[in-house]
Amino acid sequence: MSEETLKGAYQPTERTVPTRSRERASYDRTLVHQILDSTFLCHLGFVAEDGRPVVLPTLFARVEDRLYLHGSTGSRPLRGAGERDDGLPVCVTVTLVDGLVLARSAFHHSVNYRSVVVHGHAHQVTDPAERALALDAVVDGVLAGRAADCRPGDARELAATAVIRLDLREVSAKARTGGPHDEPEDLALPHWSGVLPVTTGFGVPIPADDLDPTVPLPHYLAGGGPRNGAGR
Amino acid sequence: MSEETLKGAYQPTERTVPTRSRERASYDRTLVHQILDSTFLCHLGFVAEDGRPVVLPTLFARVEDRLYLHGSTGSRPLRGAGERDDGLPVCVTVTLVDGLVLARSAFHHSVNYRSVVVHGHAHQVTDPAERALALDAVVDGVLAGRAADCRPGDARELAATAVIRLDLREVSAKARTGGPHDEPEDLALPHWSGVLPVTTGFGVPIPADDLDPTVPLPHYLAGGGPRNGAGR
Repeated sequence: MSEETLKGAYQPTERTVPTRSRERASYDRTLVHQILDSTFLCHLGFVAEDGRPVVLPTLFARVEDRLYLHGSTGSRPLRGAGERDDGLPVCVTVTLVDGLVLARSAFHHSVNYRSVVVHGHAHQVTDPAERALALDAVVDGVLAGRAADCRPGDARELAATAVIRLDLREVSAKARTGGPHDEPEDLALPHWSGVLPVTTGFGVPIPADDLDPTVPLPHYLAGGGPRNGAGR
Repeated sequence: MSEETLKGAYQPTERTVPTRSRERASYDRTLVHQILDSTFLCHLGFVAEDGRPVVLPTLFARVEDRLYLHGSTGSRPLRGAGERDDGLPVCVTVTLVDGLVLARSAFHHSVNYRSVVVHGHAHQVTDPAERALALDAVVDGVLAGRAADCRPGDARELAATAVIRLDLREVSAKARTGGPHDEPEDLALPHWSGVLPVTTGFGVPIPADDLDPTVPLPHYLAGGGPRNGAGR
């Protein structure tokens, strides 16, 4: 495999090749990064001590080929990632819904979406510089520009915050786009068919009750939100 | 415990009592159902044969105290649920993001959200009547009114569709609402603080390329979308 291919795509593995709808799967690094950068919410899956699966919604941010997740040092998966030398086996999934696909038949109903699934081992980050970078990335991932416009964590706050890292190695994206695929014999049925786009945006900012009214709305909040896809 | 309590709330278990932010947890049946009914997308977690966690985005619908998920008979978790007499241990998580909470300090940044986590064993549904009910519920869960306005599955399509059921027993909701909680000594800092609401809606319906232009837009699509929260 050429260096260019290595740079441009993640290597498929048994885990990242889907058992169905393989034509929707992609290992393209740019596409994976675009999907990850379109939101700040992931679903983190791990196996609990009792052997049962657990899925928790969590904030995250991507920095180059790494995902950073943060949370309380008391939370179960973050604690688990710190206790194991080889890290905690996790699956991190990000999903954006773009539209509802309405076919003439119930069977061909679908959803237009973009998703990324990451498999790997999550490690606790202890290096202070990497922790600071990760925490800024998570704040800026929620709202670009915000990390530089708030008070950074102090020693007590940083001590209470766990940061885990998951390297992007075993990664796949999946996406469906376009209209419904009806059976030829269904085309004359009298049911409307097409796509209902799903949109996400921001409402009018609501100042805190205790906000000094002379503090202006920052530039990154003007216009009602910085980017598409956030919040999903 | 009185019958009224049993009707009104799910029984907390070790798994559904969070290790942190316990004040955000609820076992109220009405709240759990409201959150589940506000979307059609869940994240399904299970433990793969190699012992590693897997999290997949999946459509679902609630019917009374049961969740129904559907997919191809070839998909891994659905196949797993059919092969085991005691069902497949799963965790199903639903998350709605309502707003970004911007505090003066990086540490107190947060997200307003509503989530539900369901633990249990998923079982394949084989009874034809229950399968039909579940499939209609999933279509209507995406878009209320649609199940009656499309061609139902035929024998071949139904044979290719797996339906799994997860009973709502071990369930908890979690929610954060309201503004930021800043430290008293941070209140005079010059950073804007408050909540940026996150909104979800529907765009203008896009007819299929092959749609007969005399087919009218159905009533459940008029006005640009049937309900809040869908699509997240």
